[in-house]
Amino acid sequence: MIYEQQGLRPPVVGMVGAGQLARMTCQAAISLGIGFRVLAETPADSAALVCAGTVTGDYTALPDLLAFARECDVLTFDHEHVPGEHLAALEKAGAGQNGPAVRPGRAALRYTQDKLAMRERLRALGLPCPRHAPVTDLAGVSACAADWGWPVVLKAVTGGYDGRGVWVCGTPEEAAAVLAHPVAVFAEEHVAFDAELAALVARSPHGQAAAYPVVQTVQRGGVCHEVLAPAPGLAAGRAREAQRMALELAAELGVTGLLAVELFARPGDLLINELAMRPHNSGHWTIEGARTSQFEQHLRAVLDLPLGDPWMAAPQVAMANVFGAGTGTASPDIYPRFEHVMAADPGVKVHLYGKQVRPGRKIGHVTVLGSDMAGLRARARRAASYLGTGEEDQ
Amino acid sequence: MIYEQQGLRPPVVGMVGAGQLARMTCQAAISLGIGFRVLAETPADSAALVCAGTVTGDYTALPDLLAFARECDVLTFDHEHVPGEHLAALEKAGAGQNGPAVRPGRAALRYTQDKLAMRERLRALGLPCPRHAPVTDLAGVSACAADWGWPVVLKAVTGGYDGRGVWVCGTPEEAAAVLAHPVAVFAEEHVAFDAELAALVARSPHGQAAAYPVVQTVQRGGVCHEVLAPAPGLAAGRAREAQRMALELAAELGVTGLLAVELFARPGDLLINELAMRPHNSGHWTIEGARTSQFEQHLRAVLDLPLGDPWMAAPQVAMANVFGAGTGTASPDIYPRFEHVMAADPGVKVHLYGKQVRPGRKIGHVTVLGSDMAGLRARARRAASYLGTGEEDQ
Repeated sequence: MIYEQQGLRPPVVGMVGAGQLARMTCQAAISLGIGFRVLAETPADSAALVCAGTVTGDYTALPDLLAFARECDVLTFDHEHVPGEHLAALEKAGAGQNGPAVRPGRAALRYTQDKLAMRERLRALGLPCPRHAPVTDLAGVSACAADWGWPVVLKAVTGGYDGRGVWVCGTPEEAAAVLAHPVAVFAEEHVAFDAELAALVARSPHGQAAAYPVVQTVQRGGVCHEVLAPAPGLAAGRAREAQRMALELAAELGVTGLLAVELFARPGDLLINELAMRPHNSGHWTIEGARTSQFEQHLRAVLDLPLGDPWMAAPQVAMANVFGAGTGTASPDIYPRFEHVMAADPGVKVHLYGKQVRPGRKIGHVTVLGSDMAGLRARARRAASYLGTGEEDQ
Repeated sequence: MIYEQQGLRPPVVGMVGAGQLARMTCQAAISLGIGFRVLAETPADSAALVCAGTVTGDYTALPDLLAFARECDVLTFDHEHVPGEHLAALEKAGAGQNGPAVRPGRAALRYTQDKLAMRERLRALGLPCPRHAPVTDLAGVSACAADWGWPVVLKAVTGGYDGRGVWVCGTPEEAAAVLAHPVAVFAEEHVAFDAELAALVARSPHGQAAAYPVVQTVQRGGVCHEVLAPAPGLAAGRAREAQRMALELAAELGVTGLLAVELFARPGDLLINELAMRPHNSGHWTIEGARTSQFEQHLRAVLDLPLGDPWMAAPQVAMANVFGAGTGTASPDIYPRFEHVMAADPGVKVHLYGKQVRPGRKIGHVTVLGSDMAGLRARARRAASYLGTGEEDQ
């Protein structure tokens, strides 16, 4: 590593992508006194606004990636969108001592870039997930529906997140409309779940791992709106099972850094839904709510430092995302709403991402800590709603 | 204010000085989504290394201050060293809508710049402090000693901090040696105290105030080494008295932002020792240990936003400063020590300031939260000592 060659300089972590995940990782890097750089698409990106080590470039262009990597000791990611062949080139440079360690590596990241490969790997590992099948035409979808019943879920093999790239098709006609798009998809059974959960773990190159308490995520339209930690009403055995699966997956896939596993909880079992190998919306509550935030934990993991205590800093924590209001319904100016939100609830923790407000865009989150989940949840929702829309309830 | 003229842009807070206080304020500003700039002496200053809004300039040069101020909506301070006449010029520009609000203002900051004026103001307010007297020569010091006994403390009227500018003189000869320096001093009785305390409060321009739990500071050679929150063994009535004095002082002096009041606790009373009107070493524990960190609280106060909950996030908190080791005794390279410190104690929170290591220089701090003060204190001391010196105890 470059750090070891140069002696005194603390290591530099470079994060490809400069969204809010990089922005909050930047805050954690400041405490550790390490170097931190982001590769931003534009100077107006969330992290680019605040990070002293911002480089502007194109993460789909290998020369930009290689130039950025040369100034880093460890390379990590704010998103899953760096092309696999570029990851391979970066790893080759790192292996030849001409570049940083790439963490997580291509072999692991593949399973966040190709959802069909992820499903097949999970099945090979014997881990529970929804039934699925590759499909190329309506006949294939109909065959799945004959087995599983309608609706059938069609998912883009690559590129989907936050509800994008996921279509719940109730009829053959709806499936045909999705198949008409020039997007590779696969079919998945539609799961009737009681709750959606997330299990967040960290794993370092030498194999140390740490698991956060399992949380419940509350989604609307495929987008996370609230996170409740720990998941209310979740049986201890079920929580341990989710953590065990996440730890096993992190080890089996060779993840370095964070692994977030989104799960469906049904009355009798858990099914793995999605994976992410980076800080995750379901872990934002850890900034105040855990002894070690997910952002610090990701840095410690990719630097191969001993991991921090993932234990909760309060009995219960509620997080709510802040979304921009619809056009015409409220001013896009968030700051004047601080007066009301902070006066109404001096304990609410506000995190804004510096993003331009657009309708439905995730522009921040709020966190509330205490011991009364119903009350915490109401407080978080009220604050998030007012910040986003100027109204106390959506 | 510039913010109100421009509409959508969140306000920009400018901090004069770019030490670790500005660095940690920068982290808090990122969460709030406000603009934050620092006026640094050099690009290697602690905050300059991490703040995207760094301007390099000379805080003793009015043109540099005015140029920096033009890009800010609120101007605040990392230290007390901006000359009073420059503060007056900045306030004049702000009053004429040609510059930012200056918070705290000159009228308040004066009492952190001129310790004799501070003592006289405290006496006028009827607040308890050590006996003191202006002195210009040895006869004056000897007259004090005749009244109070030796040792007599001589203090620089301006410019002292962290034990600098304070001389404990046991004999007339020692006093004469201090008086030989071309530094204006005054005399103060030497206080035999049980403990040193600090009361930290915030006050906003419209008069809202919030008080943190009173802490004990453990000093060596006039330099703070540890902070224990809340102050162990402090009677509730005594703690309330310290908070009441700090709140009264903040109101009487018209402080906007934080006010840290350092106190001597004697068996029967409290005496006010020093004042600071900025984030303060005695409040670093609040980053993890209180619902609202002192850095966020300072920003909220100077922006005239409702103040945050100052309540503790754990029953007890111990903070220990990290100091650079003496030359020759240990490598100045801190980062490799992370391995041991983090493995030994996954719950310790590390804050490094990005400073070059020099013997005795304060280069970071660590914080530990829990409910067993003796254990927390041992953990914090062990981690801080190892980070600074490579040894577990100093």
